Amino acid sequence: MSEKPTTDRQKAVTADGIREWLPKMPFNALLGIRLHRLHKDGVTICCDVEEKLLNGAGVLHGGVTATLADAAVGLATNRHYHGRPITTIELKINYFRPLPLGGRVYARAKLLRTGATLSVGEVEIRDARKNLAGVAIVTYMLLDTKTSK
Amino acid sequence: MSEKPTTDRQKAVTADGIREWLPKMPFNALLGIRLHRLHKDGVTICCDVEEKLLNGAGVLHGGVTATLADAAVGLATNRHYHGRPITTIELKINYFRPLPLGGRVYARAKLLRTGATLSVGEVEIRDARKNLAGVAIVTYMLLDTKTSK
Amino acid sequence: MSEKPTTDRQKAVTADGIREWLPKMPFNALLGIRLHRLHKDGVTICCDVEEKLLNGAGVLHGGVTATLADAAVGLATNRHYHGRPITTIELKINYFRPLPLGGRVYARAKLLRTGATLSVGEVEIRDARKNLAGVAIVTYMLLDTKTSK
Amino acid sequence: MSEKPTTDRQKAVTADGIREWLPKMPFNALLGIRLHRLHKDGVTICCDVEEKLLNGAGVLHGGVTATLADAAVGLATNRHYHGRPITTIELKINYFRPLPLGGRVYARAKLLRTGATLSVGEVEIRDARKNLAGVAIVTYMLLDTKTSK
Repeated sequence: MSEKPTTDRQKAVTADGIREWLPKMPFNALLGIRLHRLHKDGVTICCDVEEKLLNGAGVLHGGVTATLADAAVGLATNRHYHGRPITTIELKINYFRPLPLGGRVYARAKLLRTGATLSVGEVEIRDARKNLAGVAIVTYMLLDTKTSK
Repeated sequence: MSEKPTTDRQKAVTADGIREWLPKMPFNALLGIRLHRLHKDGVTICCDVEEKLLNGAGVLHGGVTATLADAAVGLATNRHYHGRPITTIELKINYFRPLPLGGRVYARAKLLRTGATLSVGEVEIRDARKNLAGVAIVTYMLLDTKTSK
Repeated sequence: MSEKPTTDRQKAVTADGIREWLPKMPFNALLGIRLHRLHKDGVTICCDVEEKLLNGAGVLHGGVTATLADAAVGLATNRHYHGRPITTIELKINYFRPLPLGGRVYARAKLLRTGATLSVGEVEIRDARKNLAGVAIVTYMLLDTKTSK
Repeated sequence: MSEKPTTDRQKAVTADGIREWLPKMPFNALLGIRLHRLHKDGVTICCDVEEKLLNGAGVLHGGVTATLADAAVGLATNRHYHGRPITTIELKINYFRPLPLGGRVYARAKLLRTGATLSVGEVEIRDARKNLAGVAIVTYMLLDTKTSK
């Protein structure tokens, strides 16, 4: 009696699956990244602007925002492709305003292109008052369509 | 008898100043980012690929690499402009190969353009065997030339 | 009796002004770029996929699409800032599908950030059937706020 | 008695082949793009800053520079992969200085990553005095490894 093995990645296509999976992804967990909500065409994730995430100027480090953009498109892509293995191939982000300590930052990913090999998503970064704090485009590649990228 | 105040940022133009400043920048410290060496036209920083920095696929999270790129150009820019206030306005990174647990990752920033308002640097990301693992372009803006960006 | 001089650039804040100005911009004219419509937050421009605009594979050259993205954000920025001098500082474009000979390509620019120094717009590239053929982010800098970039 | 068909694309791996092929690529020909020299790891192409290539500010249109970057990495990739079909998937360019009428602009592409599916090159844009006028990163995808991107 065989059973199809189900990985975390394959389960992370529902809100519950993503909520279960995110804390197992070490760097996302370190930053306190969590699911805010699912959309038909993507996901919104968020994290709190804690002391440990600041840069030398006392505001959120640009690397945290880039991490949110990467993670948001990754989760949306994982969900769209039902857990097939993927990797980020490139990411571009523009920063519009500083995010101060004590706030919360949201990354809303929307998939724009879901092809046989590539998945491209755009991300809007917003603060708790919905001010646009940045925008990103992230490209993922499906890894099981060939031997290597 | 007045004395010109000297901020950490203003001191971080020498190797010692940067070594002293980096651990005070919370997110860079969280990731274990440290100075590897100074160059005439930039800096090389590095960090260890520790468990806490991994993504769901068990390799270095793309957000860590983006953080290194941002930080490397930031340090090089800070040094070039003698500690004047700056902010990242945009960052683009391409990923070439996964960076596995237990290794070390280096980000070598080289300033390409140092103007009155903008500083642009490129970054080569390499593993300990000097394999090219990614490349980035990062743009910073000087903040004291105007009221806001 | 003095009169405020009015440049083409300063007039190009209305649909008529843009229609008059576009043919005077040599490279946009060479490509046959024209105004499609104005929006509250940007503009849509278009051009026909003519033989002369093709690449070696017989479809629209990626350079044409990049030109459209640059021009669309440039026109939107010019309009928003009432003709103040500007320059592109960076552009990022993702290509989703080939655009074949005989079709028409539209670039819809929307300004995301209009600051004291920088203007950032995103662009959706579509074919005549409204299929998304690409997406871009373009950053312009205002030139009269300082001596040089 | 069959003979393997040899396309222009397949011949364009030598300097002579590229010189023969470039004028057959309509948009590159329209801009006057020509081969400057071959390198082990890429190519340098150039074009003259003619009147027809200017923008509304009277300097080289950013779309021309983007076209050069795209074309340079395309030629280098075509050569590396011996004429296999390719397409640009994304391009990022930073502009450092205006290029005035009467000058010449060079685009030197260097391949950074040549994988089974993706080819990534960086491009340095220079004027005739070798001043760096911009920098780009361009990603191409090999099209014959799968059905679609």
